[in-house]
Formats: sequence, structure tokens, C-alpha cells
Amino acid sequence: MSASPSLPAFPHRHLLGIEGLTAAELTTLLDMADEAVAVSRQVEKKRATLRGRTQINLFFEPSTRTQSSFEIAGKRLGADVMNMSVASSSVKKGETLIDTAMTLNAMRPDIIVVRHAQAGAVQLLSQKVACSVVNAGDGAHEHPTQALLDALTIRRNKGRIEGLIVAVCGDILHSRVARSNILALQCLGARVRCVAPTTLLPPAIERFGVEAHTDMKSGLKDADIIMMLRLQRERMSGSFIPSSKEYFRYWGLDEEKLAFARPDALVMHPGPMNRGVEISSEVADGGRSLIREQVEMGVAVRMAVLEAVAQHLPDY
Amino acid sequence: MSASPSLPAFPHRHLLGIEGLTAAELTTLLDMADEAVAVSRQVEKKRATLRGRTQINLFFEPSTRTQSSFEIAGKRLGADVMNMSVASSSVKKGETLIDTAMTLNAMRPDIIVVRHAQAGAVQLLSQKVACSVVNAGDGAHEHPTQALLDALTIRRNKGRIEGLIVAVCGDILHSRVARSNILALQCLGARVRCVAPTTLLPPAIERFGVEAHTDMKSGLKDADIIMMLRLQRERMSGSFIPSSKEYFRYWGLDEEKLAFARPDALVMHPGPMNRGVEISSEVADGGRSLIREQVEMGVAVRMAVLEAVAQHLPDY
Amino acid sequence: MSASPSLPAFPHRHLLGIEGLTAAELTTLLDMADEAVAVSRQVEKKRATLRGRTQINLFFEPSTRTQSSFEIAGKRLGADVMNMSVASSSVKKGETLIDTAMTLNAMRPDIIVVRHAQAGAVQLLSQKVACSVVNAGDGAHEHPTQALLDALTIRRNKGRIEGLIVAVCGDILHSRVARSNILALQCLGARVRCVAPTTLLPPAIERFGVEAHTDMKSGLKDADIIMMLRLQRERMSGSFIPSSKEYFRYWGLDEEKLAFARPDALVMHPGPMNRGVEISSEVADGGRSLIREQVEMGVAVRMAVLEAVAQHLPDY
Repeated sequence: MSASPSLPAFPHRHLLGIEGLTAAELTTLLDMADEAVAVSRQVEKKRATLRGRTQINLFFEPSTRTQSSFEIAGKRLGADVMNMSVASSSVKKGETLIDTAMTLNAMRPDIIVVRHAQAGAVQLLSQKVACSVVNAGDGAHEHPTQALLDALTIRRNKGRIEGLIVAVCGDILHSRVARSNILALQCLGARVRCVAPTTLLPPAIERFGVEAHTDMKSGLKDADIIMMLRLQRERMSGSFIPSSKEYFRYWGLDEEKLAFARPDALVMHPGPMNRGVEISSEVADGGRSLIREQVEMGVAVRMAVLEAVAQHLPDY
Repeated sequence: MSASPSLPAFPHRHLLGIEGLTAAELTTLLDMADEAVAVSRQVEKKRATLRGRTQINLFFEPSTRTQSSFEIAGKRLGADVMNMSVASSSVKKGETLIDTAMTLNAMRPDIIVVRHAQAGAVQLLSQKVACSVVNAGDGAHEHPTQALLDALTIRRNKGRIEGLIVAVCGDILHSRVARSNILALQCLGARVRCVAPTTLLPPAIERFGVEAHTDMKSGLKDADIIMMLRLQRERMSGSFIPSSKEYFRYWGLDEEKLAFARPDALVMHPGPMNRGVEISSEVADGGRSLIREQVEMGVAVRMAVLEAVAQHLPDY
Repeated sequence: MSASPSLPAFPHRHLLGIEGLTAAELTTLLDMADEAVAVSRQVEKKRATLRGRTQINLFFEPSTRTQSSFEIAGKRLGADVMNMSVASSSVKKGETLIDTAMTLNAMRPDIIVVRHAQAGAVQLLSQKVACSVVNAGDGAHEHPTQALLDALTIRRNKGRIEGLIVAVCGDILHSRVARSNILALQCLGARVRCVAPTTLLPPAIERFGVEAHTDMKSGLKDADIIMMLRLQRERMSGSFIPSSKEYFRYWGLDEEKLAFARPDALVMHPGPMNRGVEISSEVADGGRSLIREQVEMGVAVRMAVLEAVAQHLPDY
């Protein structure tokens, strides 16, 4: 078991999004996460920072990897972790989101980790409770811990983020991951490109300060990092739903398209992957893929975030 | 972390209902719960009373707040807590309630917390196992920890229970909460009134020693505590299912009806609430509402109950 | 809490099946399980062998007793245990078994316990991860911890396994329990008989070195142990699905058929039981039934297996 370190100060009670965080604050979280990586590489993966603290994972949408990652992170810090998924909750009985949150809050948790299908739901919830709230994904809005783990993975592999060219590719329109990543990477000094068919680019994407590309060749040129996104068919409706084969042909990352990027470009994907749709297995499992490392960094980043926000004792 | 206190003796291995408990025993549980409140108000919410003990939450009906409350209570006492919901259980494969219970019992738990849709199921189960059994709600029969948390909330706010006039209002017919509360409050010396439309009053309710009222004005007159019940449409069948609007007009607690009670009357609801049906948001969230405090007291009462019954080591 | 003992060496990183284990290795696991029984019989059921280690229960098929047993076993050893059932997982989103496994593996667990509907899935998974994998049942292939707990129960009651006559009766065709038990019991020197209607016997069952019997009278003659199997109607298709009544008449174990065996023969069933189908309640709950003890031994065997495989640190 690791001794509990003295933690750097983090000024926010909640982590609702990347928006509003400074480069210094992001860097603090990444530095804390770097420390946390070592905990999970020990035989006894434990440190006592959150001993006796209560963490509730409140998931209104299911998610294997995000919920697992937060659960493991909390347990490795010694927290009492309770999972609540919507399926077994009273939301069915007509209780409102806010009543659910306030009920849980009255049980005196220290942290509520929330995933919800609606953008803004997590922020609304944070205004009603006394404890810390961490956004684990809200609709198409933000997924800040994903952006942090991606930034950490990049920094550990490239030594820096500033000045890198990062190509975010694919279904940007439906992606909270893209949104949080654009904010984080730009804040940390990367040049971000959005590479997607016009139908999957948000309107006026340039207002975010990114370059928009509508073909992979120009989009990947000189890129240091290629960040593929999951094609979220479940969020699409109406006329344009591409066939997998057609999508892969033009937008799926294979060895051929990877050659458009820098020779030392590295490949990322937030998972779960649609193999053969947005990425080939050859690339996903190849030597330039950081996909597994992203998952490991996910646990470390969530440990850091939990430690950071839990510095703020609940305000009952 | 709190030092483990020496606990007052509690003579029962199980908590199956309020029925059969003496006023002294109820008071012991409330006193223990008062101590437990402090544990959850510490930064490190932990005491070691149940360290190394095994608690199984066996829920044949889903319930956000009751299961969460028992889970948090057990974990704060250091128990190993395992949740089992019916959806993921072998009951589907045709195993009987008793086989499920005896199987779990053979794993040598210390406490099984049970919720079941049928009145009497929990008591039946308690006869087959060697460990302690706590009733977390069985059909329309009893919900003893709810009654205890309500009594605790009243005692902390009014300084006493004896002599108070408590008006239990609404769907009394389908309510195990009402039944357990009537038993507990009367045992502790309160005067209990049941206030409901005739169709939602159990036949011959007066045999429980309560006053029956079929209008809110007379029912709330001079009341110290107004305990609203959830309208349980899911348990209603046949001809009388009131519309929400109509129900609220005559039976929903709003500021206007609240004025019928004593000026210092306080308002309770076991949750989850149907806002605008049995209670207005104005009252639910207002200064005389104890609804959030009830939830906090729920964790404390469950800690006390777990500690009380776990004094009786399983009799294998 | 028990002091952590120094554990005997176990040469395998994974427990995928009984096949491939030597009699000495099986005996080591049984000896370790004998030690573990005592932990669960203490007031404080805890020892620190897996403190700070991460155990993931990955269940693609639901199972009350097996998952509970592994969860309690891990928690009593101090592990951080995380349950993942398929219903709440990303498998729905089209992620492959292997991607799920590799994702979990990247979170640096020490042990993944897996149940899957397909034979061979667990072995495949074990080849892709760095941590230990324990098979909690894969299709009709193996269920090694069930065989170990059965062997332990026999050894504790009969003082030995070698030389005993064990009659495995009923739905052998669809049973991974039968297969693992045949392998384990034969390896440990028992004489195993398979007793079933022809339609529920695997073709050429004799190649496993067992005697096949197609009536209970000859099958149970001189038997020391009668191991009844669950009739797995859910795995049957096509023309032969026996009626419960007819099945019980010829193949269900009642007092009358029990009299065919040795006077000191003992009765086992892996559960969950179909009472009145493969076994009468009289026998299941009678003085010669070991059914409850099997469940208790299940926790002990799983503690032993977790301790054994966790000696092999993950190879990241």
C-alpha cells in the first residue's frame, strides 16, 4: 500500500466538464494521474486517500468501461463505492432526477459520479447536492475524464501536448468525447483537426478553433496523434446512416490511411470499437496503437479526479 | 474512524417488524441510531462494528433508496456487503424462495436484509436460516426500518414522541409504511390518525387504536406531524384509481391544507414522492419539510439495526 | 481476522478446467480449501491474502450462487471485487468478448472470474490477458470450482475419495458439472458411474473411463455417493423433453431409489434444485443430504482457488 501523498490543491468542488478549467488545472490533474499510475502497478493496489469516504456511481446510461474504471479507481483509494444503475432505480416510479440526487445526497456521500443521456443533466444535479459531482458523460455535451485520460496518454507517449497536431476523426457530431477532447487539447496547446464527412461534422465547427477536414488524406497529413471516434449509429436518425462497408472505405483507419500521417503518429480510440467500421483490427492491435494504454490511464485519471474533488468536503 | 462503542443489548436475532417490539426496545434502537448519525457526519465515515461480517441484501423487489441505505449503512460499519437482486438470481430457474435463502445461508452471512413482494415471506425466510434477518419491506405487511427512521426524525425535531398527534395521510390501504408507523408511534405514546378517502382506508382501521378521518381538514387539526404516503397506483386494481388532479385537490398536501395543522407542524414523506399528486413541491421543499432528514436518518437507523441484530452470532 | 498463512505453491496462472491438473495439484487445492473453511466460521471472516488485489467477476450468464460465492470468497480475502454482468456491459454495443477482456485487463486486475455460455470462451479469453483467469462455467465444457467443492465435500465426509463409488445421475449430456466432476473424481481415484436415460448420456461416454448405467437400480448399487444433476430443460431442444412427472418416476432420487445404494451413501446436488423432478424434498432435506454443505464448501474452494492463482502476479 502506498503512503497517502499530500495532494496539490484543486480549486473546484465538481468536475462537470473541461470547459472552464485552466491549463494549469488540467496539468495538475495530469500530474496527479501520473502519480496514480504507480498505485495500480503495485501488487497491493491501494492507497488510503479516500478511506471512509462514500462514492456513488449513478449511471442513467449503461457503460462497461467508464463505470468499471470509476469503481476500480474509488476502491483502490479506499472509498466505499456504491453503484446505482437506472434499471434498478426508482426513476421508474416517476421520481425526478433531482429527487433521486437529493435523496442520495442526504445519505452523505462525498462524491457522486453521474452519467446521463441528457446534456446538462449533470450540471443541474451538481447545483442541488452538497457533495462533489463528477461528470462521467452527459449526452453529447462533455466527458471530461475521457479527455483527461487521452491527454495523459498523449503526454506520456510524446513527452508533451503543446504543439502536437491531433486529428480527431469520425463521428464528431454525436460525440461528447470529441467535444471534451477539443477543449482539453487546445487548452494544453495542441493543434486540433476535425476530420469527418460533412454529415458528421457539427455546423460551424471552426468556431471551436479547430481545422475542419472532409477527407482523411488532408486531415491526417503531418498528424502526431490520430484519435478515432466510435460511429454512434444508436444516436443517428433520419436519412444518413452510412453502411459499415462504405464508411470504412472512406473513413475507417487502416494501414493505408495511417500512412498519410507522420511516421511516428500514434493511434487512439475511446472504445468500445467497431472493428472494421471506424478502425481495422490491424491498426487497433498494431504497434502504434495506444488503445489499451488509454484504458489503464483511465483508472489513473479517475483516481486523480476523485482525489482532487474530494479535497472539498461536502457542504451540508 | 470512530472507536467501536460498546453497544446496548438487543434481545432479538431478527428485525421482522415493529410488531412484538417493546417501547424500551424501540427506544434502544433510536438511541443507537442517534449515535450512528455522528459516524456519517465525519470526514471518515467508518466504524468497525461489523468488520469482517457478511451482509447480503436480497431484494426481490427493486428499491433505490432502501437498498442504497442498507448498503451504505453496512459499508460504513466495515461489513462486506453483497447485493442480490431478483433479476440476476436463480429464482428464474425455478428455485424456491427458501432454497435461495438456505443457499445464501450456507455461505455463512451474518445478516440477510430482505425485501419481498409478499407479506410474510421475510418471516418464513427467517425461520430457515441461521443468521439474522432484517425486513426491508414485505408486501403490505411491515417496513420496520422506515418506521424507525420516521420515529427518529420526529424525536430529533420535536424532542419527544409521546403525546404528539401524528396524522398519517393518503394511501393507507396499500402501505406497509403506514402499518409499521402506526405500530411504532403508538407504542412510543403518540396519538395516530389515519386520514384518507374511504376507499384507501383498510376496513375497521379503528381496531388498531387510531382515529380515522375522511377529510384533511378534520384529520390535520392540531396535528404535530403530517406524514404523507405515496399513492401506490401500481398496487391498485379495479374500479377506483383516482386521477392525479382529483386526488391532489382533495388529498394532496399543499400550503392551504397544511394550515389546518398546528403552526409548528412538520411534514414527512417516505419517498419516492409523486409531486403534485400527494404533495406539492412548495411543501415538499419548504421549511417545514423533514423529507431530506428522513433519508439521512434512514442510514443511521439501518446502522443501528445492523449493529443490534449482529450481536446475535449466527447459529450454525 | 486470520493471519495470512504461507501458501503452498500452485504452478498454474489460470484455472480453466480440471483437465490438465494432476492429483497432487487437486489435493493441494483441497488442502488449501480445508484451511479456508475455518475463515468463514470465525466471527470476523477475513484474511488478508488478497488485500489490495483486484478481482473482476465477468458473468456473461447470470448465476446466483456461483457469482455470490466468488464475490464472498474474494471479499473475505480482502480483495477489491467488481461484478460485471453482461446486461450492463458494452457487449450490447457490439464489442467482442476479447475486446471486453482486454479492456478489463488494462485496468490491471489480478484475477478475472468468467462465466460464459460457450465452451472454450474462457480459455480463449485467458490467452489474451495478463492476469489470472478462473473458469466459473463455460457452456457444456467445464465448471472446475464446482468439481473441487464436490470433491472437498466428499473428502470431508468420507475421509477419502480414492476407492469410492460415485454415481453421477441425470442430465449428463448438458452438464459441465458432470464433466468436471468425472475428471476430478477419477483423477483422485474414485470409480465414477454415469446413470441416465440413453437420451441424456453423451455418446461413447465410456471413453471417459466411466461405467454407464441406464437404470437407477444398477447404477446406484453399492454407491458411496449419489450426485444428482439438475435437469437442464433450457438447454434441450427437439423431440425429447421429458415431463417432470415421468422423469421423476424413473430418474428422480427418492427414498425408494436411495435404498439401492449403500446404507451410508450420501447425496449431493449442485443446485439450483428442481424439487420433485430430479430429487424429492424428503431426500434433499434429509439426513444424508450434503447439499447445504456443498454451498459452504463452495466459498472455501473459491477462496483457495483465488489464493492459488493469485500467487502468479499479472504479467503486464
